[in-house]
Amino acid sequence: MAHATVEWTANLAGEFDLDALMRLIADEMRLRSDGVFPVGGIRVRGYRVDDYVIADGTCADDGFINIDIKMGVGRSNEFRKAFFTALFDSVKASLSDVFDRRPLALSIYVEEAEGWKHNSIHKRLKG
Amino acid sequence: MAHATVEWTANLAGEFDLDALMRLIADEMRLRSDGVFPVGGIRVRGYRVDDYVIADGTCADDGFINIDIKMGVGRSNEFRKAFFTALFDSVKASLSDVFDRRPLALSIYVEEAEGWKHNSIHKRLKG
Amino acid sequence: MAHATVEWTANLAGEFDLDALMRLIADEMRLRSDGVFPVGGIRVRGYRVDDYVIADGTCADDGFINIDIKMGVGRSNEFRKAFFTALFDSVKASLSDVFDRRPLALSIYVEEAEGWKHNSIHKRLKG
Repeated sequence: MAHATVEWTANLAGEFDLDALMRLIADEMRLRSDGVFPVGGIRVRGYRVDDYVIADGTCADDGFINIDIKMGVGRSNEFRKAFFTALFDSVKASLSDVFDRRPLALSIYVEEAEGWKHNSIHKRLKG
Repeated sequence: MAHATVEWTANLAGEFDLDALMRLIADEMRLRSDGVFPVGGIRVRGYRVDDYVIADGTCADDGFINIDIKMGVGRSNEFRKAFFTALFDSVKASLSDVFDRRPLALSIYVEEAEGWKHNSIHKRLKG
Repeated sequence: MAHATVEWTANLAGEFDLDALMRLIADEMRLRSDGVFPVGGIRVRGYRVDDYVIADGTCADDGFINIDIKMGVGRSNEFRKAFFTALFDSVKASLSDVFDRRPLALSIYVEEAEGWKHNSIHKRLKG
């Protein structure tokens, strides 16, 4: 199971394609993790941030996109480093035109947590 | 102090009772933790998720409910395992009809964090 | 890089100044951390919580403000304790009139996480 949460400041509306970014993250997890992230457990969501203060709070154009990853315990350090470095590079490349146009902070954080789950999407996928 | 955050995908609107689910979680913390979670510190909130990609992104009916628990450090492993297994079973049972109707991913994650607090709800409870 | 997320229950609308609270947090990070938090990496956001259950769920006036801090690994325990105790005291003082008027739970949680980042706000600041 792998969760990703994309937070983006409202001043980036129209500047990037949220759905494409979420699909990129889901596709990387699905197609490039060698099955480490079972397909049925991939959940990516986006939250628009309407209220924020960035850096010294003086530049209305400052924006951020922050991606928090949460997953169960047990993936190796080697996998984490390789997979999330590649994911970060893909996300960054997909936003290169935004970086060209304005000040932007992009970040990905990765955390493991103890979890309980019940998921009938796996069955839907096999169906 | 115990925080719970319920995220639910917008395609589940009308499919379950958010307030009842939040009350179930708060009640379990209040009534079945043997005082491990002081009543005044229980805070459950819900966030509707309007933008998301689930699994392979092909099924508009796929939905998820994810519950993140955050609490101060210090509860024993035995308590954690027993309490959250029981909580998960209660939550899952309360959603059984949703599971019958559609593909759904349910998850609970539990994390401890270092905290600072000031809370006048304890005083209100003592009246 | 330092992230802060301010969650506040909707029944506190008009009771406190969200923007001032977010600026206070950003200013503490910028001006009182001896450079431990680079200015360009400071990101504070607020989320209004419309759906919630607090404590025993019986008091419509119960409210909460919860601040989650997320930052990269590596700050010393001494710094963490001193900085966040001072931050908490500042935030609490700024909300003293709200505490006088109603039951309120205030909390700050601090977590470290493994991160990847690319940030052109640093360049804007030097510009």
